[in-house]
Amino acid sequence: MTDNQANVETIVIIGSGPAAHTAAIYAARALLNPVMYEGEYASGVAAGGQLTTTTDVENFPGFPNGIMGPDLMMAMREQSINCGARILTKTVDSVDFSTRPFKVSGSFGDVFAHVVIVATGATAKRLHIKGEDVFWQKGISACAVCDGALPIFRNKPLVVIGGGDSAVEEANYLTKFASKVTMLVRKDELRASKVMQERAFANSKIDIKWNTEAQEVQGDQMMAQVVVKNNQTSAVETLDASGLFYAIGHTPNTDFLNGQLTLDESGYVITTPDTMKTNIDGVFACGDVQDHVYRQAITAAGTGCMAALDAEHYLSAQGLI
Amino acid sequence: MTDNQANVETIVIIGSGPAAHTAAIYAARALLNPVMYEGEYASGVAAGGQLTTTTDVENFPGFPNGIMGPDLMMAMREQSINCGARILTKTVDSVDFSTRPFKVSGSFGDVFAHVVIVATGATAKRLHIKGEDVFWQKGISACAVCDGALPIFRNKPLVVIGGGDSAVEEANYLTKFASKVTMLVRKDELRASKVMQERAFANSKIDIKWNTEAQEVQGDQMMAQVVVKNNQTSAVETLDASGLFYAIGHTPNTDFLNGQLTLDESGYVITTPDTMKTNIDGVFACGDVQDHVYRQAITAAGTGCMAALDAEHYLSAQGLI
Repeated sequence: MTDNQANVETIVIIGSGPAAHTAAIYAARALLNPVMYEGEYASGVAAGGQLTTTTDVENFPGFPNGIMGPDLMMAMREQSINCGARILTKTVDSVDFSTRPFKVSGSFGDVFAHVVIVATGATAKRLHIKGEDVFWQKGISACAVCDGALPIFRNKPLVVIGGGDSAVEEANYLTKFASKVTMLVRKDELRASKVMQERAFANSKIDIKWNTEAQEVQGDQMMAQVVVKNNQTSAVETLDASGLFYAIGHTPNTDFLNGQLTLDESGYVITTPDTMKTNIDGVFACGDVQDHVYRQAITAAGTGCMAALDAEHYLSAQGLI
Repeated sequence: MTDNQANVETIVIIGSGPAAHTAAIYAARALLNPVMYEGEYASGVAAGGQLTTTTDVENFPGFPNGIMGPDLMMAMREQSINCGARILTKTVDSVDFSTRPFKVSGSFGDVFAHVVIVATGATAKRLHIKGEDVFWQKGISACAVCDGALPIFRNKPLVVIGGGDSAVEEANYLTKFASKVTMLVRKDELRASKVMQERAFANSKIDIKWNTEAQEVQGDQMMAQVVVKNNQTSAVETLDASGLFYAIGHTPNTDFLNGQLTLDESGYVITTPDTMKTNIDGVFACGDVQDHVYRQAITAAGTGCMAALDAEHYLSAQGLI
């Protein structure tokens, strides 16, 4: 290592969710002295990632009676620190992967690093309708797989917003728990594939409202109704609903990369199969920023571990540690 | 579904480690009513898998102060049950994937299933030398990445057995913590690749004993010495050592598959990249039985989730749920 690299970080981790913390835990235990930029409400989500906007997490293995999302993330953060990771509550605004070491920049200035692990996650798209903020996670959810099995949704009427494959999939999934599922579809047809469409039509518990958009969510402690409007007739209707599931997609938080990593058409970072390597040697990506298929806390954590181990191999092979 | 399939299980999970339980948790929460065959000391490991043979687990995210391996597995087992999975303490002896539904057999008889998830793990190879059973996890470990950072190994002389890439890697890794690392190599050369060899030779904290085999592990509460023998000169020597790391490989527990899944040359199940699909539609594999690279509890758990979600897609696409 040359003198001008004396202040170079070995590993910078950008993110604050399960992937970022698992990467930090593994890197810290390997004495790689990682530093994590957890962000200050970066991409509209508090440090801790999407789990901070959830309540009960019943499917993270190791917690027989479930754990609250924010509690799980506080535990992971504490564990990262206990293992020796440094955590800075600063947002990374840009990166420069064209120089070695890499440059990571924000209001804190410029930091240089031999390895960058991108774990910035994805943000569920919102509609910003009336009542959305009030009842988010009080009936409104962006993840049927995560939340569908919760007791508050059992044998209750539920509403799904969206017309793509994942909307149909989520609606189908929710019929296991719900008394009835109403899909709100903005157009007069589904974007979903033919086979998924047929599945929706064949499911007697699914009712589709065409040309219909949600306007407002109402309720008391928990949401109880969705006000919807037909965008052809302008007719307004109030639907009883204990749950409202947004299936309108996620936005991977990759804008700050400014095109320096290869992304797929939806903006997710592409990683080499069965690894967390990106197209740039020394840059790794893990968690929801590179996974639009599984998108679970436990899968994100697994990939965080993989990224840290991949990074260690890289550093070792390059003679940087 | 025809009448003769009335007693067919939707999902049979074979295994009992983090992958198996995470698959069970996800499948149960999706109301797929999975049944898990956790085995009766299958492949020489108690139900719960390799973590039952460990002590402190500091790198499973969510536990700031670590958790004992057996406690983590008991928690996962309880969680599987709480989510609705049925767990049978029976060993699967054979499977038949040539029929639909698949047939799963053991002392319990034959069971039929639309989906089989193989999560039978891998077993660390042992030498069966004197004292090995006594000091296993009392200084003896089969995973430097898992255990190397534990306080008992800090600034202590450690011994690694093996001459391949992973032995060199583990020895190198352990020099971060150890006062000195001695490698015991059975032959007069390393099997490891050239670049790894050079790394071992260049590391001043690594001492290699050629033509040398471990004969016995000695100690009191914890191991304190390794007795080694030069297989050329027959000279016997006692080395002080607070830790002994076996880096002689793992055996994936795939014998019971009897060649019905495509395996790699070491016997690991090959899965389609970025999925847990095997070469047979409806059969999925997760955890260490298909991963010889990362082999961590958290990565295994992540793949268990993936297998369950892949299985659900498959069942749905086939009209089986």
